[in-house]
Amino acid sequence: MQKLIITVAPTGNVPTKEMTPHVPVTPEEIVRDIVECRQLGASVAHIHARDEAGKPTHEKRFFAEILRRLDDKGCSIIRQISTGARAGKTPEDRAEALTLNPDSASLATGSSNFPASANLNEPQLIEFLAKTMLARKIKPELEIFDSAMINNALELQKKGLIKEPLQFNLVLGVKGSLPATPKNLFFLVESLPPNSVWSVSVVGPMHVPLSMIAMALGGHVRVGVEDNIFYSKGKLATNTGLVERIASLAKAMGREIASPEETKQILGLS
Amino acid sequence: MQKLIITVAPTGNVPTKEMTPHVPVTPEEIVRDIVECRQLGASVAHIHARDEAGKPTHEKRFFAEILRRLDDKGCSIIRQISTGARAGKTPEDRAEALTLNPDSASLATGSSNFPASANLNEPQLIEFLAKTMLARKIKPELEIFDSAMINNALELQKKGLIKEPLQFNLVLGVKGSLPATPKNLFFLVESLPPNSVWSVSVVGPMHVPLSMIAMALGGHVRVGVEDNIFYSKGKLATNTGLVERIASLAKAMGREIASPEETKQILGLS
Repeated sequence: MQKLIITVAPTGNVPTKEMTPHVPVTPEEIVRDIVECRQLGASVAHIHARDEAGKPTHEKRFFAEILRRLDDKGCSIIRQISTGARAGKTPEDRAEALTLNPDSASLATGSSNFPASANLNEPQLIEFLAKTMLARKIKPELEIFDSAMINNALELQKKGLIKEPLQFNLVLGVKGSLPATPKNLFFLVESLPPNSVWSVSVVGPMHVPLSMIAMALGGHVRVGVEDNIFYSKGKLATNTGLVERIASLAKAMGREIASPEETKQILGLS
Repeated sequence: MQKLIITVAPTGNVPTKEMTPHVPVTPEEIVRDIVECRQLGASVAHIHARDEAGKPTHEKRFFAEILRRLDDKGCSIIRQISTGARAGKTPEDRAEALTLNPDSASLATGSSNFPASANLNEPQLIEFLAKTMLARKIKPELEIFDSAMINNALELQKKGLIKEPLQFNLVLGVKGSLPATPKNLFFLVESLPPNSVWSVSVVGPMHVPLSMIAMALGGHVRVGVEDNIFYSKGKLATNTGLVERIASLAKAMGREIASPEETKQILGLS
């Protein structure tokens, strides 16, 4: 079985300091959490930025500061930037931080709903982001919020806009998108093309059992305060605690954890 | 097995007279096709309207003329009005024709993509349409373009906004939404709550085999030029020809076809 890629998603767009003191929002806090999670086994950081007021932003300067601080710390973690639907508005907004040439970036390949708005990714936007990533040699992580997005990704591949190995992140448990059930996870996994690399990213209490199923099937795992502010019922999560639990599960099952270098090989990153 | 409900979707938003001479666009043409399809077994008409230029519209007056002409012909078919995402823009636009109090109306319970735009149905819009239908005793047909929309419908039911029997139409083969495969159809059907009434509506050449699978499983079928301008490879479809084929399949398998009165009982229409 492939070595396990652990991705940490420390911040996201939704959690606030009012919801949990453990969400890092300043570049300093975000980098502190990422560096600590790297030491615990995470090889990819899925990065969202916040502005001075703590609000989600796609502005390049905030991402630039996070990347600069990671470089300053000598952190070898793979940098993956979010292009998600919540913060930015125009395609140019959503692509702004791609000009920093991160190793990787998220690419949702269709539309679904969030709890109170649409997860809006129109065909033209998807192609624009995919072309930008291709031109800049940024590896797209395909964010699958619902079943149709897998086929939409295959259509992008047919057009030559994304390259093998395809890297999917199966997002389950976002209200308005696909619920977090074993049945839904199996269906998505069975719908993936051969030779794809895939992880799960599960919102809500099912994140532990579904992460275990993914690990048992040879998939990879993303965890972090972005996806879950609770570690278990009534107990707030920290990014390090969430990563540590996945690392413990990997150790207990005898699955080795991939280093950033090994993760680059698995994902075909240069 | 329940008697078969055949729905005819004669017009839709996409086909033009340039694409096929067989798409009815004026109220007179639409009503002519519906009346003929009723005679061949269709018990529900899924109605879109076009303006004088043949463009999709949600304006009430065009729907009103179609309904008036159906009344004039004494046609007993169940009237289902589209509230779909392509034509109207504001929630009020999309609900405008509901003030005509049709028997039924379509209600997409989530967002997905169309070939060149989003099938945008935000949570607030969905609740607004559901509440309007509930207040006017209009039966919602839940349009499922992707897996998550089933659970979204169950959330509406928990809020008391839609009532049993839930009526689902599984839409397969729209580019950007769920592809038309037997595997996807089985997954959706297995994800439905017990006691729901469901049909398929399939775009593309898979509409014949997937309609047959639906019929064999106890589901119902929607056909029409809205969904397929081709009857078979290279041969343009007519609404009557498409309905006739489903009626022939029903006869050959020994499944009785539901009359409008029987369809009302199945759907719990008053």
